[in-house]
Amino acid sequence: MDITSDTQALTSFFRPRNIALVGASDKSTWSAMIHSRFARFGHEGQLFAVNRGGNPAHGLPGFTSCTEIPEPIDAAYIYVPAAAVISALEDAARAGIRNAVILTSGFAEAGGEGVHMQAEVAKRAAELGIRFMGPNSMGFANIGHHSAMTSINTRLPVRIGRLALISQSGAIANELGKFAHAQGIGLAFTAATGNEAGITVTDILDYLVDDDQVGAIALYVESLKKPDRFVSAAARARAAKKPIVILKLGRSEMSGAIGLAHTGSLVGDDGVFNALCDRHGISRVSSIEELIITADFLGKVGPIDPPRIGFTSISGGACAIYADLADIHGVEVAPYTAGTQSKLREVLPPFAATLNPLDVTGVVLQEPQTWSKVIPILQDDPNMGLIVASTVLPNTETEVQILGEGVRAIAAGFKTAGKPPVIASLILQDASEVQLAFRKSAGVDVTLPDLDFGVRALAHLQRWARCLARPLVEAAAPANLGIRPVGERETLAYLAARGVPVIPSSLVTVAAAAQRVVAALDTPAVLKIASPDIAHKTEAGGVRLNIAAHEAHETFESIVAAARVHAPTARIDGVLVSPMRKAATELIVGVVRDREWGLALTVGIGGILTEVFKDSATRLLPLDPAAVRDMLLALRGAKLLLGYRGQPAADLDALAAAIAAIAEAAAALGPSLSVLEVNPLRVDGSQVEALDGLTIYQAGSGGSGEEA
Amino acid sequence: MDITSDTQALTSFFRPRNIALVGASDKSTWSAMIHSRFARFGHEGQLFAVNRGGNPAHGLPGFTSCTEIPEPIDAAYIYVPAAAVISALEDAARAGIRNAVILTSGFAEAGGEGVHMQAEVAKRAAELGIRFMGPNSMGFANIGHHSAMTSINTRLPVRIGRLALISQSGAIANELGKFAHAQGIGLAFTAATGNEAGITVTDILDYLVDDDQVGAIALYVESLKKPDRFVSAAARARAAKKPIVILKLGRSEMSGAIGLAHTGSLVGDDGVFNALCDRHGISRVSSIEELIITADFLGKVGPIDPPRIGFTSISGGACAIYADLADIHGVEVAPYTAGTQSKLREVLPPFAATLNPLDVTGVVLQEPQTWSKVIPILQDDPNMGLIVASTVLPNTETEVQILGEGVRAIAAGFKTAGKPPVIASLILQDASEVQLAFRKSAGVDVTLPDLDFGVRALAHLQRWARCLARPLVEAAAPANLGIRPVGERETLAYLAARGVPVIPSSLVTVAAAAQRVVAALDTPAVLKIASPDIAHKTEAGGVRLNIAAHEAHETFESIVAAARVHAPTARIDGVLVSPMRKAATELIVGVVRDREWGLALTVGIGGILTEVFKDSATRLLPLDPAAVRDMLLALRGAKLLLGYRGQPAADLDALAAAIAAIAEAAAALGPSLSVLEVNPLRVDGSQVEALDGLTIYQAGSGGSGEEA
Repeated sequence: MDITSDTQALTSFFRPRNIALVGASDKSTWSAMIHSRFARFGHEGQLFAVNRGGNPAHGLPGFTSCTEIPEPIDAAYIYVPAAAVISALEDAARAGIRNAVILTSGFAEAGGEGVHMQAEVAKRAAELGIRFMGPNSMGFANIGHHSAMTSINTRLPVRIGRLALISQSGAIANELGKFAHAQGIGLAFTAATGNEAGITVTDILDYLVDDDQVGAIALYVESLKKPDRFVSAAARARAAKKPIVILKLGRSEMSGAIGLAHTGSLVGDDGVFNALCDRHGISRVSSIEELIITADFLGKVGPIDPPRIGFTSISGGACAIYADLADIHGVEVAPYTAGTQSKLREVLPPFAATLNPLDVTGVVLQEPQTWSKVIPILQDDPNMGLIVASTVLPNTETEVQILGEGVRAIAAGFKTAGKPPVIASLILQDASEVQLAFRKSAGVDVTLPDLDFGVRALAHLQRWARCLARPLVEAAAPANLGIRPVGERETLAYLAARGVPVIPSSLVTVAAAAQRVVAALDTPAVLKIASPDIAHKTEAGGVRLNIAAHEAHETFESIVAAARVHAPTARIDGVLVSPMRKAATELIVGVVRDREWGLALTVGIGGILTEVFKDSATRLLPLDPAAVRDMLLALRGAKLLLGYRGQPAADLDALAAAIAAIAEAAAALGPSLSVLEVNPLRVDGSQVEALDGLTIYQAGSGGSGEEA
Repeated sequence: MDITSDTQALTSFFRPRNIALVGASDKSTWSAMIHSRFARFGHEGQLFAVNRGGNPAHGLPGFTSCTEIPEPIDAAYIYVPAAAVISALEDAARAGIRNAVILTSGFAEAGGEGVHMQAEVAKRAAELGIRFMGPNSMGFANIGHHSAMTSINTRLPVRIGRLALISQSGAIANELGKFAHAQGIGLAFTAATGNEAGITVTDILDYLVDDDQVGAIALYVESLKKPDRFVSAAARARAAKKPIVILKLGRSEMSGAIGLAHTGSLVGDDGVFNALCDRHGISRVSSIEELIITADFLGKVGPIDPPRIGFTSISGGACAIYADLADIHGVEVAPYTAGTQSKLREVLPPFAATLNPLDVTGVVLQEPQTWSKVIPILQDDPNMGLIVASTVLPNTETEVQILGEGVRAIAAGFKTAGKPPVIASLILQDASEVQLAFRKSAGVDVTLPDLDFGVRALAHLQRWARCLARPLVEAAAPANLGIRPVGERETLAYLAARGVPVIPSSLVTVAAAAQRVVAALDTPAVLKIASPDIAHKTEAGGVRLNIAAHEAHETFESIVAAARVHAPTARIDGVLVSPMRKAATELIVGVVRDREWGLALTVGIGGILTEVFKDSATRLLPLDPAAVRDMLLALRGAKLLLGYRGQPAADLDALAAAIAAIAEAAAALGPSLSVLEVNPLRVDGSQVEALDGLTIYQAGSGGSGEEA
């Protein structure tokens, strides 16, 4: 068993009391800085210096070995030179220590020999039964539990709260903490995992999901490890309504096989991870500030129901900026109900419009108490799950004098109703101690610091709330059928057997039979080369459209000849004959296996233009028809399904059912499947048909399409 | 002549010395607040109180009328009740005062009677020859010239610099100034124009373009007035390389006529204003912080050449965040040259990659002087017009001790080379006095406060530099031909006469002639109803494709019959017969007249899917073929023109020439033209042909298409 997944062991790891500082020295300003962090973060427990000379350091008693320390020791904090790390671990193990943070750098992050040394450290730690963070890790501060072993900095006073920060990078961990502090946001936990030869961001996430001190988790990740555990932690966080917000960088590589199918270019480098976020309600952000503001806000507000937001401000300018930012970031701006609007008209001046966003007008400057009437009316609106009142939060004593009464009136208005009270300020500035004290005295608990990040946080809140309101599709994966259809013909036959509507076709193996088969159709025909070894038939000259019976013989021969030129070694089964369908809406449906996150289904509309316009949606399996319907309606091209310009509307139920059946059919092909793609899936009103299909299997699992 | 456009008069308006405070009273805290602003902003000049009792106020001598003041008075600052504003203006005029700020509210912003009162004020001021800002205006502070008459607030110490802020909203003006102050950004000018019955944002912009104290101009605008002056100011600012950055809200209305053409939905509500920004290098932003940070940065850095940016940081995390944000915001990230990379390898550790963004690795922690070697190497890169070094700017004395040496080493590195030195910090926090003093002592003049807004500012910088490097297309508008083609047939004939390649067609007026005309073609035909009164022929059943000669007679009759049902009163000229072209790439090209900004051309690719996927570009006229080529290549669908999936590449020169000819043809139809649309413009390799065309004229100018 992985020693990092034992919850009890992790609890002991993250709540050490007595700690050995291995490498502590009064000669090192670095060591002094490290020692100072314990007091800063309010660590409760005894500290001991361990170094070659057994010298005291930073006022702590000194020892040459952990084994000499007279007290029981919970953890070793190791910052000896890289070459001495293994012996430090061995010494710690001899003292019965099972937990360590290895701060020492010069391992994998330095390349070359460092990579090898890091592997040796990990191997030896496992042998010794030591759990560790690092190397090159700045450790953690479990602020909520008064435990720390970290070189992460904090400004003072430390603000204790419910936000947890987990970063791979130490430099970024410092900035995360600094920004949270400047914004007056309190932390429960902070960690920087470094090279992650031991405990990873994922392990800590998994642990903190169950920590009651933690209300929201913010992650900074360059490369995410242990995907299965990540998914299970995310699912538990979703169930517990504890938000996870992630700043994930770097691009995941597509496997070569997936690149062969068109789906690959639609999914893009990050599409499957985005699908994972979508499934589990993880909010993905793009900057440090957005990470902290969003995580803090979601943690304090919780999922709102209904997932709609009413906005109001004293400033018409703020309302206008809000409206435009809401449009940019995809916040749905629904109107207040007619009832709300009529009640508003009773308390606002006649020239005030009762729109969302609601400009309460300058009247509140003269009569701040108008706020106390307006807010309860908005809070009562059944159409809204949250009301945000925007004003200027005072940051100086003078501003408190000028603005305080208005803010207090807003806060008083919020107190009369049940939804979380949110006040948004207009610009991002540090929350001064004056502001924090004022907020406390006025009962202003939840704030957004500005409109730019504030609206982004509201967009994340709305998506998160919608995700949590959706049932999570949790179907058992279908049994692996142990079969392996290859090429268009087998793939379509397999899909048909699994309930996917598929165009009828006949395999013709000799040219002489082609005319008869085409003549039996009511319509002209499509002739396509049938070969398990040719994935891209058009490029091989292997597709001919609109063929009449009398042309069929010659077409058969020309297709086979072209294929032989294009792919001389390909096995050729013959030519597939299908009826020619008239032009209609075409979708591409592809199921691809992501190395880390498993099977994901991508759907796009628009035939060849799908790739040009990158209009597609990707979701992780399992999927049901309702989820597929949501995917389809989320596409820009959804208009084409809803009866665009006089075209018949598509039967969305039939279409969603067909796509869900494709997903399940792909899953039933077992773990060697890389790609199952239907392109096109044709939709013409109620007629849904797969016109072509393709499967690709993982290299080394017994051959695939084009790779042969 | 508009008295607000006289530069000399505006100079006297914006540099008053002696000011009468009309409405000043010791009983009013509001009046006291207003009076305090003069000292805050360092106003140089004498102040006098004017009120009904002639009482002194705020320590100023009191008078009952401006005419009694013994000194010459440059301006009146009016905040009497709304009903007394006109008599205050009359009194001021009698005292020879020609300049006023009217702070009083209760005019158009309060609706009803206020609208009328405001018109009266404007009328009376014009009669009296008084220039004024307001009503409901918080006035201005001309900080660079030590003149102020404003109720806008400022934190102290006032930071004097080169940024000008012009806002319609007073509340937003306060926030703009506060944010600039918190960021340590100095101002030359700030104003809030309010209801703009007199001086507008546009007037002030026009004036400040020529003020040497002003290096950059930031605008907050809800509704922009005087478009012609705005354009001429923008053009002068472009020539002077003085950046204009605008936060413009609210949506401009499309005229009803434009909505008739498909182009309307492509351009969207804001597309023409965006085209104006594109033409003149105006940076359009979406939040207060982005406005201030971008304007300050562009003003300090100036347009860079080449317009590419090299980024470097001590933090791999910062490099990764930068790369992802650059992708999101469209910053081109070009590699350093091979020469630069080889020089970097000599000074960086072997495991450092020499990419852009450049992670200099933790080695600079031990050896900050590495920065002094790295920065000049990057500064020498001929591929880059700007190098941005990212680190943490210290905000406290402790941080100066820890981080100061590294930042000084970066600054020293920048001193050896000619490009503007830029240091970017990682998170947005207030710039403390410690930081500002440190920056001064270290010679760090230009900073970006964080990555989120920083990368957006870099994206604006890059676009602005590219715009300034492009020649501005300045062709005289073609002479108004005084003609008025209506309907498809006349429009296409007109376009053909103006050099646009157009599909050949024949007008058939009797069904009996149709077969002969079709038979004369080499191909099947397209038959379309010819009527000046039917703009949307497909919806009228008036278009039939792929008609053989023997079908032509019947098709003619069925088209005419359908048209008569659809539009019983429409004039029907007959049926147009053209050769049927095979499927190829289709563009839509539309020229629309925006009420404020004039003619703009929109081009989109993708036939009916253009509207679904909203893939279009809009530029103001005049346009030349080179500018059209840029537009085409900026589309996502440009791939379809460049030889997508084995299709022949389009002849871009021929295509751009055709589109430029359409633009010129539209302009030659004179000011009554609302829309000229070619849809589709078909492109098949080197063959470019307008297949259909439509014109719409302004209502009241003599009738148009569908409106009849």
